[in-house]
Amino acid sequence: MRILILGGDGYLGWPTAMSFAAQGHDVCVVDNYLRRNIARETSSEALFDNPNLVDRAALFEATHGKRIRVEIADCNDYRSLERIVRDTGPEAVVHYAEQPSAPYSMRGFDEARRTLDNNLGATFNTVWALLQHAPECHLIKLGTMGEYGTPNIDIEEGWLDVEHNGRRQKFLYPRQAGSLYHTTKVLDTDLLWFYVRTHGLRVTDLMQGPVYGIDTAETRGDQRLMPNFHYDDIFGTVVNRFLVQAVAGIPLTVYGKGGQTRGYLNLKDTLQCVALAAAHPVKRGELRILNQFTEQFTVNQLAARVQAAGARIGIDVAVKNIENPRKEAEDHYYNAKHQALLDLGLEPHLMTEEVLVEMMQHVIRHKAAIDPRKVLPRVRWNG
Amino acid sequence: MRILILGGDGYLGWPTAMSFAAQGHDVCVVDNYLRRNIARETSSEALFDNPNLVDRAALFEATHGKRIRVEIADCNDYRSLERIVRDTGPEAVVHYAEQPSAPYSMRGFDEARRTLDNNLGATFNTVWALLQHAPECHLIKLGTMGEYGTPNIDIEEGWLDVEHNGRRQKFLYPRQAGSLYHTTKVLDTDLLWFYVRTHGLRVTDLMQGPVYGIDTAETRGDQRLMPNFHYDDIFGTVVNRFLVQAVAGIPLTVYGKGGQTRGYLNLKDTLQCVALAAAHPVKRGELRILNQFTEQFTVNQLAARVQAAGARIGIDVAVKNIENPRKEAEDHYYNAKHQALLDLGLEPHLMTEEVLVEMMQHVIRHKAAIDPRKVLPRVRWNG
Repeated sequence: MRILILGGDGYLGWPTAMSFAAQGHDVCVVDNYLRRNIARETSSEALFDNPNLVDRAALFEATHGKRIRVEIADCNDYRSLERIVRDTGPEAVVHYAEQPSAPYSMRGFDEARRTLDNNLGATFNTVWALLQHAPECHLIKLGTMGEYGTPNIDIEEGWLDVEHNGRRQKFLYPRQAGSLYHTTKVLDTDLLWFYVRTHGLRVTDLMQGPVYGIDTAETRGDQRLMPNFHYDDIFGTVVNRFLVQAVAGIPLTVYGKGGQTRGYLNLKDTLQCVALAAAHPVKRGELRILNQFTEQFTVNQLAARVQAAGARIGIDVAVKNIENPRKEAEDHYYNAKHQALLDLGLEPHLMTEEVLVEMMQHVIRHKAAIDPRKVLPRVRWNG
Repeated sequence: MRILILGGDGYLGWPTAMSFAAQGHDVCVVDNYLRRNIARETSSEALFDNPNLVDRAALFEATHGKRIRVEIADCNDYRSLERIVRDTGPEAVVHYAEQPSAPYSMRGFDEARRTLDNNLGATFNTVWALLQHAPECHLIKLGTMGEYGTPNIDIEEGWLDVEHNGRRQKFLYPRQAGSLYHTTKVLDTDLLWFYVRTHGLRVTDLMQGPVYGIDTAETRGDQRLMPNFHYDDIFGTVVNRFLVQAVAGIPLTVYGKGGQTRGYLNLKDTLQCVALAAAHPVKRGELRILNQFTEQFTVNQLAARVQAAGARIGIDVAVKNIENPRKEAEDHYYNAKHQALLDLGLEPHLMTEEVLVEMMQHVIRHKAAIDPRKVLPRVRWNG
């Protein structure tokens, strides 16, 4: 299958590219290094260096014998994206090309505007490049579970059947997100649903929870092939950040009461989910929405798990509840469905103590590189 | 009250500006002539000329003795908008500064992208200019009834109480619009609701139906003070277009079966609604959504009313069902609530035969200027 991966330099993009290429697909990655640039601008560099995309692809070819085509280009520049879609004629596009940090999007006007422009523009251009040059192509779009927020009712998979005054209607499940970044994903979903309805686009929208993990089948422990590993408050997802704090002897910073519940998944499962979506394309005019996570925890439960994993290898991990820099419910109902990907064949890698210990041991090898200034919150939601 | 009107050159913007100024408010209008430019670019000029905004304001001052400050600026340029907000210190902002044509937004990539960028950018900048320079200001935003689309259940005023698996949650009423233009208004609502929740913005979002009318209390029959009157397929709302077709002896072009039902209102009532919203501001952190129309009809019923009004003054009006250029339900359930503005004091001007005859007589004075090439659909939804 010819697969185009937008945002192919990212934490998910690069492992996805390797995974598809290893399976024999014809892969092209597109990236403009936006995340790397923002990481530098905000002093939020990853724990260890990652070669640039061209070098990574060369290394992957040398070690795995498979070629990944690299295009350094901005998906928010329509002429570039259009050319790439025309040149590659993709059967599936995996769209990760968004500014992925919630705190960055809440930092101020410039960061918020950049997030809005980049994310909406990349999605809009992707829609049009496909409509104009690859109308049969299946668009696999990375959304987020954060689009739903934390409603007081069960979270269904994308849609909600409503009975009201004796009549019935199926709606997109109502969304209300907790950051501007998450809100741009809500807007993406609105846009995609519109073009699916009116122009017959084929879309799978993946509502993903926070991801953790460093290793995938293709990294084989070779750090140069590993994805970027962020532990800072801007790009670091909570599990990765907790592991680094544990290793650095910094108390795990639980925001507020720690009752915030989310659905988590292993990076290896992200790869499975995207592969399953690609292997089971939707028909024209269909928007399929899949909730993409494998288990749900509170932040307090996560902290306790990291603490237990630390104890296993002789690390004493402290936990500290700090003032919540975000505006979010800290104690709420949360029951999110996630059956559809299991039905497609997902075999979850759960967050066992072994998994956490293994990640922690990798972090220990980089202990000297940990910058403690990066792990405390630097952005407050109410400015 | 110090009132800033964004999009002050528009069909609604200019009458709103005159109305507030006549009541003694301190009014500043902002516009970049986007609609005039697009009208020229698409050969969709209005039925009669309108002086530019500076000339209109001078004329209004000469006839009414009230000054309206004019700023020719692009609300999608943050520095300009920020300067104007700082300079004027508004207590209320009426935000009309959007590309308002559904067909234009469906014409192709460039038009769609321009609509998305302009509308989202103007709304985003307005939010931020207020957060940074006038946080107590009440933002009165023009949305559209079209955000809701045509669901199979009653349309409530902005919100929907959902009971699901034995639990309850109040959501933004789920929206699914029929054009990219209408979708940008859905995105606006998502954005506003986000910044209301997180930053305590004060917002009234007006879900308005199609507006008709030329005359307001301030025009006193003086055409130079009248709003732009579009009858083309791009900017002309259906009633205005039907009246021109009736006068020109062109059959009223009913799209498809003509069972499309919408809520309509008189331009005079738009002015009342906006004034009522401004006179009753919401508190910080509140998003009030008002459904803004006075009566609902099918397109067939509208055509019959225009026919009847024509007969009254000796004009024989034909009606023709043509292929629907849009993608929309032509026969559907529609029951939209619109109580809140009545509760605030709205006194509707209904679409009587007298009202239609009076508008028709105005159009007759410009019969020679009617360009028949402008009234048939030039844009198809599915490209």
